[in-house]
Amino acid sequence: MSATPAYDLLAAGNLRLHHLGHLGAMAHWDQETHMPTRGAAARGAALAELAALLHRMHTEPALRERIERAEQEPLDDLQRANLREIRREWQIANVLPESLVQARSLAASRCEHAWRAQRHANDWEGFAENFADVLRIARQEADLLSQHQSVSKYDALIDRFEPGMTGAELDRLFGDLKQWLPPLILRVREHQARDTVVAPVGPFAASRQAALCERIARLLGFDFEAGRLDVSTHPFTGGAPEDVRLTTRYREDDFQQSLMGTVHETGHGCYEQNRPRELLGQPVSQARSMAIHESQSLAFEMQIGRSFAFAHLLAPLLAEAFGSQPAFEATNVHRLLTRVRAGLIRVDADELTYPAHVILRYEIERALIEGEIEIADIPALWDEKMMALLSLDTRGNFRDGPLQDVHWPSGMFGYFPCYTLGAMYAAQWTAVLLDLRPTLHEPLALVHGDLAQVFDWLRENIWSQGSRWTTAELAIRASGETLNPAHFRAHLERRYLA
Amino acid sequence: MSATPAYDLLAAGNLRLHHLGHLGAMAHWDQETHMPTRGAAARGAALAELAALLHRMHTEPALRERIERAEQEPLDDLQRANLREIRREWQIANVLPESLVQARSLAASRCEHAWRAQRHANDWEGFAENFADVLRIARQEADLLSQHQSVSKYDALIDRFEPGMTGAELDRLFGDLKQWLPPLILRVREHQARDTVVAPVGPFAASRQAALCERIARLLGFDFEAGRLDVSTHPFTGGAPEDVRLTTRYREDDFQQSLMGTVHETGHGCYEQNRPRELLGQPVSQARSMAIHESQSLAFEMQIGRSFAFAHLLAPLLAEAFGSQPAFEATNVHRLLTRVRAGLIRVDADELTYPAHVILRYEIERALIEGEIEIADIPALWDEKMMALLSLDTRGNFRDGPLQDVHWPSGMFGYFPCYTLGAMYAAQWTAVLLDLRPTLHEPLALVHGDLAQVFDWLRENIWSQGSRWTTAELAIRASGETLNPAHFRAHLERRYLA
Repeated sequence: MSATPAYDLLAAGNLRLHHLGHLGAMAHWDQETHMPTRGAAARGAALAELAALLHRMHTEPALRERIERAEQEPLDDLQRANLREIRREWQIANVLPESLVQARSLAASRCEHAWRAQRHANDWEGFAENFADVLRIARQEADLLSQHQSVSKYDALIDRFEPGMTGAELDRLFGDLKQWLPPLILRVREHQARDTVVAPVGPFAASRQAALCERIARLLGFDFEAGRLDVSTHPFTGGAPEDVRLTTRYREDDFQQSLMGTVHETGHGCYEQNRPRELLGQPVSQARSMAIHESQSLAFEMQIGRSFAFAHLLAPLLAEAFGSQPAFEATNVHRLLTRVRAGLIRVDADELTYPAHVILRYEIERALIEGEIEIADIPALWDEKMMALLSLDTRGNFRDGPLQDVHWPSGMFGYFPCYTLGAMYAAQWTAVLLDLRPTLHEPLALVHGDLAQVFDWLRENIWSQGSRWTTAELAIRASGETLNPAHFRAHLERRYLA
Repeated sequence: MSATPAYDLLAAGNLRLHHLGHLGAMAHWDQETHMPTRGAAARGAALAELAALLHRMHTEPALRERIERAEQEPLDDLQRANLREIRREWQIANVLPESLVQARSLAASRCEHAWRAQRHANDWEGFAENFADVLRIARQEADLLSQHQSVSKYDALIDRFEPGMTGAELDRLFGDLKQWLPPLILRVREHQARDTVVAPVGPFAASRQAALCERIARLLGFDFEAGRLDVSTHPFTGGAPEDVRLTTRYREDDFQQSLMGTVHETGHGCYEQNRPRELLGQPVSQARSMAIHESQSLAFEMQIGRSFAFAHLLAPLLAEAFGSQPAFEATNVHRLLTRVRAGLIRVDADELTYPAHVILRYEIERALIEGEIEIADIPALWDEKMMALLSLDTRGNFRDGPLQDVHWPSGMFGYFPCYTLGAMYAAQWTAVLLDLRPTLHEPLALVHGDLAQVFDWLRENIWSQGSRWTTAELAIRASGETLNPAHFRAHLERRYLA
C-alpha cells in the first residue's frame, strides 16, 4: 500500500489527461498541416468536445478533497512541486464553466479556419465579424479569472502563459525598451550602411530548403525519430513531448524565412523533447512558461542562429544546398542574418525590430481585453503604432497588419509579451554561457562542436527542470538572478555596434 | 419539450462519441502515415486511453433504462432503426470489461508497430512472440461474446464486422467456391495463354503515380475538399466521414499496385463520404457492414476498374502520366488488368485468385480463434494451403506469407471473409446495374460519362442507406434478393472466358 494514496490518484488522473491531450495535439497539428477545407467543422466540433471532456476531468468534484489529502501526505520535493502545479491547474479550471471552455474551443477553431482565407483576401471586415465571438469569450474568461485571482483582466490572461507576470511589470520592462530601442535601431542602421551585403540569388527550390532545414534542425539536436518537420500557414511547434511536430513554410524567392523559422521552432522542439521523462504526463514535467519556452526558441534563432559562429557553420551548407554563390561567403551570411530593416511581418523581423512588433500587439490586446477599445479600433491603432515605432505606413494592408498572426484568431491573448520576455531571458542565459565558455564567440566555435556544450547547459538548467521551480526560481538557479533586461541590451549593443 | 426525451439523450451521447472517435481516427491515420518511430508507445497509450473512455461512455449504467424508455417513445422509422443499432452496440459493449478493451487497444498498437519491422526482416519468431498478446486478448473477447450471444467464438468475432454472418454460412459459400474456382482459374489461364500482353516499361516516378492516382480518385467521385490520399505501409481508408483519408503505396517499377489500390480505397472513400449526412454521428448513419463496405471497394476495383470500358478511360491517362508506350493501348491495358496469375500477395491478387487468399486466411483464423491450432502452427498451414489452392511454394517466406497483412497484428479476426463476400455483393449490384443500363458494357461507356449513373445507383441504394436496414434487407431492396453468389461466378465466367 502506497504511503501517498491521494497523490497517486492525482498522478494517475494526470496521466489520463496527458494521453487524451496527445490526441487533441495531433488533431490540432493535422488541422494546421493536412486537413482538407471541408473537414474544418467536424474537427472544430471534435476538439471542442475534447476540451469539454478534459475540463470535466480537471474539475471533477472529488479533486478538491484529493488535493487536500495529498497535501498532508509524505511527498518528496518533486512530488510537492507537482502537487503545487496540480493545485494551480485545478484552481484555474474551476473558475471556468464547461460551456465556456467548449464555446472557446469552437469559436477559436471557426475563427482560425476562416482567418486563413480572410487573411489571404485582406478581408478585415469579414474577419472582424468572425473575431467578435473569440473576443467576447476571451473577455468573459478574463472577467471570471480576474475576479477569482483579484488581478486585472489582462493580467489574468497573461498568467495562463507566464504565471506571475503582470501588465504593470510589462509596462516597466517595455517602457524602458521603448526608450532605448528606437535610437539603437537608428545607430545600427547607420553603422550597417557602411557594409556591402551581397543578396543571395534565387530561386531556392522548396525541396532543397526542406532538406537544408531538416539538416540544420538535426545539427541543433532535434531528434527526428521522435518528431517531424512539416509545412503550415503559420509556423508552430505542436504534438506531444514524445512526438514533437515542428512546422515551417517555404518561399522559393527566400530561404531565410524557412531556415530561421525552423531554427526558432527547433528551440521549442528541443525543450519539448528534453522535458523530464520520468514525470511525463505530470504538470511538473511541463515547460515552465511560455516566456521560458520562447527563451529557448530565441536562444536558438537569435543567440545562436545569428551569431558569427553560426554563419561559419551555415555558409558551406548553403553552398551545398543551393550551389556556390558570392552571397554564401561566411561574413556575408552573417551580415544577411543580422541585417536590421523595419518590416511589416513579426515572424520575419530581425532581432532589433522584433520587440517593436511585440510591444504594439501587447498594447492593443491589453486595451482590447480591458474593454478600453473595440475590434473596429484595431486598424487605426495598428497604423499609428507601426508609424510611431517603425516608421512604416500600413494603412489598408490588413493582411500584413493585424491579420498576420494566428494568436488573436485562436484566442491566445496574453501570449505576445512572452516573445520579448523570452528574448531577454535568452540573452541572460547566453551571458552565463559566455562566462563559462568565452570561446563560444569565436568564428569557428560551432563548427568545432561547442554546440554540444550549449545544449548540455540548456538541458541541465532549463529543459530537465520542467516546472519544478517558479520562473523566478528557475532564473536564479540558472543565472544567479531574476529577469534582468540589461543582458538583452548589452547583447544587442555588442552584436550590432561592434 | 420533446416527445422523445430518452431518444434525444441517446442521440446526443452518440454525437459525443462520434466527435471523440474522430480524434482517435485521425491519430490512427497519423500513426500509419506520419508518426515517427519513437512516438509509438505514447500513441499506443493515448489510443488505449481513448478506447477505455469510449467504452465507459458506451456502458454508462444510465443507458439501459434510457434505451428501454426510448423504445416506448413515438419514434419514426429512421429513429427506430437508429435505436436498434444503439441497442446492438450497447449490448456488445457491455459484454466486455474496460480492462480488456484498453488492453486490446494497447496490444494491437504494440504488435502492429513491431510487425512493420518484423515483416521487413522476415522475422516470424519475433512476430509470434509479439502476436501472442493480441491473440490471447482476441480469444478472451471471442469467449465473452460467444457466451453472451450463444454462438461459436469465431462467429462472435465475425459479427463485429458482418452482423448475422456465421462460419457455417461461410463454409457453405466458400465450400462451393473451392469447387468451381480452381478449375475456372486453370481454364482462364489456358484461355489467356493465347493473348499477347505487352508489359509496361518503367520506371514510373512515384510523384507521377501520385498525380495519376489523385486524378483517377477524383474521376471516381472522391471529394478532395473533404479527404486526402497519402502513403502508408498497408493501404487503408480511415479518418472521419467529413474528412476521409485514403492511403496507397508506390513502387517505381510498377504502377498497377498503387493505381488499383487507390481505386479500391476510393470505393471505400465514396461510401464514407456519402453516408447520410443529417444523421452523422448516429449508428444508423454508419456503413452497413464490412462486406457491404468491401462490395463498394470491389465494385470500384474489380467491377469498374478491370472492365473493358475502364481500360479505355485509363489508356490515354497512362500515356499522359508516363509517356506513350505500346503497353498503354486500351486492349493491352485491359489484358494487363485482367491477367490471371497466382501470386503471394493478397492485395496485389487478380480478381480470380483473390478468393483463394481469403479462404486460406479464413480457415486459419477460425481455427486459431476456436483454439484448434496455435500461433506456431500457422506457417505450416499457410504453406500447405497456398500449395493446395494456388500451387505456390511459400516455405520460409513469412514476409510474403502470414506476415503480409495488417489484420492479424491489429486483432481484426473475422474481417477477411468480408472481402470475398464483398466481391459477391459487388457482382450482384453490377448485375442490377447492367439490367438497368445494358450499355455499361460497351468499351466507351465510362468515357462517355456512364460513371455518374453507376454512382447515382450506389448512392441511392447503398451509400445513403447507412445502417437503416439489415444487410439482408439492404440487399433485397437494392437487388431483389439476399446474397446470391451465382452472380459472382457468372461475372467471372463472362469476363474471363468470353
